[in-house]
Amino acid sequence: MAAPPRLAPDLSSIVSLADFETRARAVMDPQAFDYVAGGAWDEQSVAEAEAAWRRRRLRPRVLVDVSHVDPSTTMAGQPSGLPVAIAPMAAHGLAHPDAEIATARAAAAAGIPFTLSTMSSASIETVAAAAPDGVRWFQLYAQADPRRSRSLVERAAAAGYGAIVVTVDLPVLGYRERDLRSGFNLAVPHGNFADSPGPDHASHGADADGGYDIIESTLERGLTWPDVATIRSWSPLPVLLKGILTAEDARLAVEHGVAGVVVSNHGARQLDRAVATADALEEVVGAVDGRTEIWVDGGIRRGLDVVTAVALGARGVLVGRPVLWALATAGQAGVERALELLRAETVIAMTLLGARTPAELTRAHVAG
Amino acid sequence: MAAPPRLAPDLSSIVSLADFETRARAVMDPQAFDYVAGGAWDEQSVAEAEAAWRRRRLRPRVLVDVSHVDPSTTMAGQPSGLPVAIAPMAAHGLAHPDAEIATARAAAAAGIPFTLSTMSSASIETVAAAAPDGVRWFQLYAQADPRRSRSLVERAAAAGYGAIVVTVDLPVLGYRERDLRSGFNLAVPHGNFADSPGPDHASHGADADGGYDIIESTLERGLTWPDVATIRSWSPLPVLLKGILTAEDARLAVEHGVAGVVVSNHGARQLDRAVATADALEEVVGAVDGRTEIWVDGGIRRGLDVVTAVALGARGVLVGRPVLWALATAGQAGVERALELLRAETVIAMTLLGARTPAELTRAHVAG
Amino acid sequence: MAAPPRLAPDLSSIVSLADFETRARAVMDPQAFDYVAGGAWDEQSVAEAEAAWRRRRLRPRVLVDVSHVDPSTTMAGQPSGLPVAIAPMAAHGLAHPDAEIATARAAAAAGIPFTLSTMSSASIETVAAAAPDGVRWFQLYAQADPRRSRSLVERAAAAGYGAIVVTVDLPVLGYRERDLRSGFNLAVPHGNFADSPGPDHASHGADADGGYDIIESTLERGLTWPDVATIRSWSPLPVLLKGILTAEDARLAVEHGVAGVVVSNHGARQLDRAVATADALEEVVGAVDGRTEIWVDGGIRRGLDVVTAVALGARGVLVGRPVLWALATAGQAGVERALELLRAETVIAMTLLGARTPAELTRAHVAG
Amino acid sequence: MAAPPRLAPDLSSIVSLADFETRARAVMDPQAFDYVAGGAWDEQSVAEAEAAWRRRRLRPRVLVDVSHVDPSTTMAGQPSGLPVAIAPMAAHGLAHPDAEIATARAAAAAGIPFTLSTMSSASIETVAAAAPDGVRWFQLYAQADPRRSRSLVERAAAAGYGAIVVTVDLPVLGYRERDLRSGFNLAVPHGNFADSPGPDHASHGADADGGYDIIESTLERGLTWPDVATIRSWSPLPVLLKGILTAEDARLAVEHGVAGVVVSNHGARQLDRAVATADALEEVVGAVDGRTEIWVDGGIRRGLDVVTAVALGARGVLVGRPVLWALATAGQAGVERALELLRAETVIAMTLLGARTPAELTRAHVAG
Repeated sequence: MAAPPRLAPDLSSIVSLADFETRARAVMDPQAFDYVAGGAWDEQSVAEAEAAWRRRRLRPRVLVDVSHVDPSTTMAGQPSGLPVAIAPMAAHGLAHPDAEIATARAAAAAGIPFTLSTMSSASIETVAAAAPDGVRWFQLYAQADPRRSRSLVERAAAAGYGAIVVTVDLPVLGYRERDLRSGFNLAVPHGNFADSPGPDHASHGADADGGYDIIESTLERGLTWPDVATIRSWSPLPVLLKGILTAEDARLAVEHGVAGVVVSNHGARQLDRAVATADALEEVVGAVDGRTEIWVDGGIRRGLDVVTAVALGARGVLVGRPVLWALATAGQAGVERALELLRAETVIAMTLLGARTPAELTRAHVAG
Repeated sequence: MAAPPRLAPDLSSIVSLADFETRARAVMDPQAFDYVAGGAWDEQSVAEAEAAWRRRRLRPRVLVDVSHVDPSTTMAGQPSGLPVAIAPMAAHGLAHPDAEIATARAAAAAGIPFTLSTMSSASIETVAAAAPDGVRWFQLYAQADPRRSRSLVERAAAAGYGAIVVTVDLPVLGYRERDLRSGFNLAVPHGNFADSPGPDHASHGADADGGYDIIESTLERGLTWPDVATIRSWSPLPVLLKGILTAEDARLAVEHGVAGVVVSNHGARQLDRAVATADALEEVVGAVDGRTEIWVDGGIRRGLDVVTAVALGARGVLVGRPVLWALATAGQAGVERALELLRAETVIAMTLLGARTPAELTRAHVAG
Repeated sequence: MAAPPRLAPDLSSIVSLADFETRARAVMDPQAFDYVAGGAWDEQSVAEAEAAWRRRRLRPRVLVDVSHVDPSTTMAGQPSGLPVAIAPMAAHGLAHPDAEIATARAAAAAGIPFTLSTMSSASIETVAAAAPDGVRWFQLYAQADPRRSRSLVERAAAAGYGAIVVTVDLPVLGYRERDLRSGFNLAVPHGNFADSPGPDHASHGADADGGYDIIESTLERGLTWPDVATIRSWSPLPVLLKGILTAEDARLAVEHGVAGVVVSNHGARQLDRAVATADALEEVVGAVDGRTEIWVDGGIRRGLDVVTAVALGARGVLVGRPVLWALATAGQAGVERALELLRAETVIAMTLLGARTPAELTRAHVAG
Repeated sequence: MAAPPRLAPDLSSIVSLADFETRARAVMDPQAFDYVAGGAWDEQSVAEAEAAWRRRRLRPRVLVDVSHVDPSTTMAGQPSGLPVAIAPMAAHGLAHPDAEIATARAAAAAGIPFTLSTMSSASIETVAAAAPDGVRWFQLYAQADPRRSRSLVERAAAAGYGAIVVTVDLPVLGYRERDLRSGFNLAVPHGNFADSPGPDHASHGADADGGYDIIESTLERGLTWPDVATIRSWSPLPVLLKGILTAEDARLAVEHGVAGVVVSNHGARQLDRAVATADALEEVVGAVDGRTEIWVDGGIRRGLDVVTAVALGARGVLVGRPVLWALATAGQAGVERALELLRAETVIAMTLLGARTPAELTRAHVAG
C-alpha cells in the first residue's frame, strides 16, 4: 500500500494555494501585484474562473482498489508527474528576483512542464541553462515582424524546449482598468523579454518608458489561421494554440494540424465576460472528439479542480497566478511547496473518486 | 495596422462610465440626482438592467485579421460612428446649465446621434442651432391636444431633426417612490419643455408649480395603434416607437410601418419588474425577423454591453443616465469623455471577439 | 380622461405598505409583533412569500387606450372595488384597541371584502354592526365540537356575512419557534374569539391562561373531505376552502362543490418550506380549469403583486400582515391609507400593462 | 385525538437542534470542536449539506384525518420510534466524558437505533452493557489486517448489535484543512477505539502520539466489492454499506446482497464538492428500485429534513453532528432533548403534510 501523500516540513504552515496570495500581496509592489491579480474591465471573469470549477459536483465511486494511485501522464507527448503544467506568465521578475529561473527549477523538481513567456524576465537560453532536464515549453506572441517570431521559435527549439504554445487571444490588450488606474506598465527593455539576457538585466515598473503601447506595437494584430502552418514550419516542435474558447475555433485548430489547444480566456485579462474555461471545456472536448490534446487554464487552485478538468476531458491544466504568488512568497521553495500541495490534493481526490490514473477519471465522475 | 484606441488626456482619471455617477452625485442637487437615478416602485428593474447585460457570456473568435476594426454603422438610415445614440432624457438642465446644448455638441463631436426629449430644458430650435451638423432626433410624448404633438413634429422636421422617436410607455407616470418621498417635481414652465426658448429660461425643482400633475394632464393616455399613421403623416421623418418589450407589440409595430422600435422599459422608471431589455431583446428580434430596425436601451454602461446588444440583433443602443452623469461632471467635455471611453471599449471588445464591423457581430458571439 | 390616482393628504408620508411595518414594530408589544410577523420553523417560507412575487417579470403592452381603467371585480359573487380582500387574521386587538371594528370599517370604506377570523377580538355580531354595508366574510376553524362550528356559521349567515372561508391547513399549529422562544400565547377567553362580545372584553398576552394548548384542543384534527358537504349544508352561504397548495387538492375541492379555493400556506405560519403561493397558483389554476374561483394570499405587498396574481389566473388576493401593521399604525385611518395605496399602485400597474379591467390581465402579461 | 407533541420541561430553552451547536462551541476544546464541525478542503459540501434539504419545497395535502400520526418504522428490520438513527461518529469522548455510553442510552430511551463507530471512545461491550435494550448497530472501518475486522464484527454480533454498517468512502482521509491548520489528531491508544475498555481509559487530543498517520496505516485501502461477501460471512448480521453516492454503486451494492445502503458523503469530511446527499438520494432511489433499504445522512437538522428524505424514498436518516453538540451540551439529557425535538418536529410536519405514517409520505409531497 502506497504511503499517503506527505507534505514537506518547510513552509508547512501553508496548506493551500490560496495561502500564497495573502503572502504575495504583502511582499510584492502593489502595482505589480495588481497587474498580476487583475483582469479586464469589471473583472467578472476573474471572479467566475474559480467559481466555475467550484460549482461542479463530484460523483465518487467506492470499493475500487486504490492501493496505488499514480497521477502521472503525458502532455504534448512529454512526461509530467501530474496533469499540470506551469502556465506562461509575463515577467516573473515582478514576483521575485530569481524570476523564471526559480520557477523553471521548481517545475523540473516536481517533474512537470514549465512554459516560458515571450515576455519573460529571463531569456530563452538562461532558463534552459537553469533547468536543463525539465520539460520546458515556449509561449509565442506573434510579432509584428515575422522574422522576430521565427527567431524566437528557432531559439526555443535550439535550447531544448519541447513545444511552442502560440497565444491567439491578444491581438490587442484587454481593457485593464486596474492598470489604467494605477498607471502600471510593463517595461520592455529589448522589444520583448525573452530576448533579454537574464533577470538581472530586466526592469519593470510604472515609470518604465513605453509600456503597453510598445507591447501592442510589437504584436501582430493580423494573425490568421494560415499563419499556423507557417509557424509550424519553423521548427520540428509541436505547436499548440492557447486561447480557444469555442467549438468552432477548436475544429479549425484540428483542421490546421495543431498538437493541442489550450482552453483559456487569458486569465480573464483580455475579454471580460468571456465564458469561463470550466464551462467552455466541454464544448471544446465535444468538438475535438479526440483528434487533438486539450488543456485548460483559468481558476485552477485545487486538486479538485485538476481532477474535474481531467474528468471533463482535458489532458491537463495550466496553473498561473498561484505559481507567481508562491514565487513571491519564497522563490523556488515556494513554487515547490505549491506543486507539492497540488500533487497531494490531486492524489487524495483521485483516491476518493476511485480513479487510480488520470485515464480512469471519466465524465461520469462529474455530475450534470 | 490601426493604432489602438487612445484616451484623451483631459479627464483622464475617469476610465469607465461608472466613474461619472460618483462625481455627479457630489455636484447635483440631491433631489434632482435621485430623480434621474431612480426608478419605479422598488427599483428592481433598475438593478436588473445592468445585471442582465453583465450576466451574458461572450464567445470570442480567434485568428481573425483584426488589423482594422470599424465600429461605425447607420441608425435610422443616418450615419453613426458607433452603434450608440444618446437616449432621450428630460431636462438636461438638472445636470448642467449648458443642458442639451452641451450634450448635443458632444454627440456631434463624437459622430453619434442625439435625441432631444419633449421635456427638454432647451428648445428644438436652440439645440438645432447649437449642433447644426450633428445627427439629431426628436422624442415625442403624445400630447393630450394632438395639435401640440403635430406642431412639435413639424418644428423638429423644420429644424433638421432626422427621426421622430415616439415614446409609447408613458400613458401615466410610474409609481416613483423616490420622488414621492423627496417631493421632487419637474417644473413645466411652458406646458412642455421643448417649447422653451433655452436653458437660461427653464427652471426645475421641487418648489415648482405643478410638476407631475401638470405633466400627466398634458399627456395623451388614449394613444393607440391607429395614431401611429397619423403621426407618420405629419412629416417625412422616419418614425420609431420607443418602449416595446414584447413580440406581440413588435409585430404590431412592423405592421404599422414604423422605421424602427426601441426595446425599452423607460429606464425602469415606469413599470417595475418589467422584463429587462437585455432579455426582451431576443424575443423582439425574433418577432421582427429583419423587417425593421431594432434599438435597445437600459443599463448600457460598457462597450461589452454594446457588442452584446448588437450580437443579439440590435442595430444599436441608446445610452441614458451615464450621459447625464458625465454632463453633470464636466459639461460638454464630460460627455465627450464618456463617448470616447465607450468607443474605446467597444473597439477593443470587437477586436477581441474577432468582429471587424458591427455586422460581423453575430448571435454566436453570445453564449446560450 | 380619468384623473391619475391620488393619495389622501393624511398619513401622506407613508407611500408603500412596507412603511407600516416599521411603525407597527415601534408601537406594538414585541411579543405580539413577533407573533404576527413570525412563521414556522426557520421562516424560510416567510422570506420566500414576497420574493416569489417579486421575481416574476411583467410584459407590458403598449398603445392600448387606457383612458379609463377600472380595477373593480367580483369575488365570491360579491362586488369588490379591487381584486383584493382582507385576509382572516386572529385577534386584531393585538394591533389596536379598535380591533376588527376598525379594519372592517376601513374595508367597507374602500369597497373591498373583510374576512373575520374565528379567533377574532370582536364578535361576529359586533363587526357586522360596525360595518353593516361592507362585504363581510367569515373564516371558520372547524371546532372539535361540530355544534360549535355550526353555530358560528349560522350566526355569520344571520349577521349578513357573505361567505364562509374554511381554513383547512391547521389540524395542529405549525412549529413556531419565535413563539416558543418568546413564550407568547393567544388568550382564549371564551373558547374561541368570534364568540366574544367585543374588543373591550378580549385580552391577549403571554400571561393568558391556556393559549396554544387550548386552541389546539378546541380544533378538529380529523376534518376530511366529506365534512365539506356538512359545512355547506349549514347555511346558504358559499363555502370556500383556504389552504390549498396542490393540483390534487384543488381538483378534490372542485369535486366537493366549493365556491372557491384560497391558495395559501397560512402566511408561512404552518409548514415551513411549503411551496410559495405565487408558485403554487399556476398549478392550481391549471387543475381547476375555470370550474371555481381561485384566490391567493401570502406576500402580497404591492399593486404589482395584485396584477401578477390576477394575470396568473387568480380572481383576487387576500392581504394579511400589512393590514395589521396599518391598523397598529393609525387604526381605521391607517388601514384606509393602506388600501388607498394598494388601489393606486394597482391602477397604475394595470395602466402600464395595458389592461383596463382585471379581466384584461392575462397570462401573457407575465413572462415565463 | 392524540395530544399534540409535548416538549420536556428540562432544557426547555433549547427549541431546535441548531441551538446545541452554539452551546457545544462554548464548552468543547476548540480543536476538538473544529475536528467535529469541519469538513474537507474548502468545506463547500459542509455548507451545502443543510442547504440541499432546505431548498426542497413541500406540497402539503389537506383534509386528511390526522387524528393519529405515528412516525415509527423499521430500519434494517428493527423497530425505530422515528425514521431516524444516530450516525456513527468517532470518539464521543471529545464531546462529553460519558461518551458513547450517554449517547447510546439516550437513543435507547427515545427508541431509535444507535450506531457505534470503530473509532469509538468506549468499547463494543461497554456500550452494549450500558444500553442493553436499545437497538445498536456497529460501524466497521475495514482494517488493513482482515483478522482485526473479523474480530470486530464477531464481537459486535456477540454483544447484541443488530447490523454492520461498513464505511466504504474512507480509503484515505480527506484533505482536512482545519485539522492541518490546528494540528489536531485523534489519539489511537489501542490501534482502534472500539477495542478500548471504556471512556475513562481513552484519551484524545492534539498531543496524542500518532494520530492521522496511524489511523490511515490501520485502514484497508484496497477494499473492493468481493470483500463485501467476506464481511457478510463473518456474522449473521445484516450488512449495509455507508458512503454510496451514485446509481452505479447502488446497483452494485444490490448485486452484492447488502441489506441496505447509506447515501452519505461522510459528513463532507472526505471529498469536498461531492454531490449533496439530498441530491444523490433520488438517483440512488431510482437505481435501487425497491430492492434494498436506503438511508441517508448529511445535514439533517429538522423534522422537515426527515420527512423530505422519507418522501424522496429513504427508509430513514442518520443524524450526526447535532447529536455530538447535544452530548457536549448536557450529556445524555442533551441527546434526549435533541431527539425529543426531532420527534416533535417530525410529527408536526407529517401532520401538516397529511401523512399519518412514514409510508404515507410519497414523492408527491416534495415539489419538483
